Amino acid sequence: MRREELIEAVSRQMPAKRWTHTLGVMETAVKLAGRYGADPDKAELAAILHDLAKGWPVDRQRSFAVERGLAGEELDYDPELLHAPIAAFVAETEYGVTDREVLDAIRYHTTGRERMTVLDKVVCLADYIEPGRNFPGVEDIRRLAESSLEEALVAGFDSTIAFLIERRKKIFPLTVAARNGLLIELESAALTKDK
Amino acid sequence: MRREELIEAVSRQMPAKRWTHTLGVMETAVKLAGRYGADPDKAELAAILHDLAKGWPVDRQRSFAVERGLAGEELDYDPELLHAPIAAFVAETEYGVTDREVLDAIRYHTTGRERMTVLDKVVCLADYIEPGRNFPGVEDIRRLAESSLEEALVAGFDSTIAFLIERRKKIFPLTVAARNGLLIELESAALTKDK
Repeated sequence: MRREELIEAVSRQMPAKRWTHTLGVMETAVKLAGRYGADPDKAELAAILHDLAKGWPVDRQRSFAVERGLAGEELDYDPELLHAPIAAFVAETEYGVTDREVLDAIRYHTTGRERMTVLDKVVCLADYIEPGRNFPGVEDIRRLAESSLEEALVAGFDSTIAFLIERRKKIFPLTVAARNGLLIELESAALTKDK
Repeated sequence: MRREELIEAVSRQMPAKRWTHTLGVMETAVKLAGRYGADPDKAELAAILHDLAKGWPVDRQRSFAVERGLAGEELDYDPELLHAPIAAFVAETEYGVTDREVLDAIRYHTTGRERMTVLDKVVCLADYIEPGRNFPGVEDIRRLAESSLEEALVAGFDSTIAFLIERRKKIFPLTVAARNGLLIELESAALTKDK
């Protein structure tokens, strides 16, 4: 599907507010891709599709994910997590996306994962800081995003974990693994620099 | 080894300050065991031994743990985590403790684990709230400990996770699993109560 057709098809399926968010993620992801060396077209494609299932009723998300074996551990956590693996599945089966990198960036845009690619990081961070976002600490994350993809993403995951603790919600293990992985990357980078 | 001999042997090996902490954990663990239905003798035994390796130099802890295959994932995290599996090993091999429940309560007293026994919870919580402890939020945890072992322990793990985030340290996955497990327990208990 051509870019314009895809934008038309996805935007038609979501309320204006979510489409505005999607436009913000597209713009931010392209910018971050340029800054940190990911493919801007792939970043934009993942951004267009990342929230396509977010507005589905939770019951539909759950049954869709269960029937197709899409979500493993996610099923035991906040239903909020289901829309990401569903979007990756629908991107592949209905929108003809075949690029594994793009599909993974969609799949892991909410939780992160242990060894995140630059594209994963770009899409996940864009979702945190697109211009429409407004949560405590978002300005700090935007500032960090100017100089370090990993620092900004650690700060993003920190805010998610703090939010879950405040709400007495379970913490998704993959997000902790993603954050730990980023800290290891930052540590190795600092060591290399010191040498 | 008799209780008095054990106390004598362990206390001789640690500085006065750590022994005072151990006495606090013993007293608190026995109290919590009485309140929440764990065996007070087992709770005290685990408490006596829980920090026996805490004062060892980190290099000795690391080589001891590696040579004996005691620590798995712990080796990639804060060295602070090593003393617990070492203490469980030494309790078994040098102090003749054979009770698996006691050894596990020692083994998991710092990190917690996925399905914590009542004894695990009692020893872990006693370590958070013994009278000598003085960190932000400890009074809240002490108050929660009056009415719920699980609520108090969730608050304890929350404070640990918040501390690690503040210090930019990796979060040990088992601690997140322990906290998630406690929230599931609390949720099931609330559902049962509602019926």
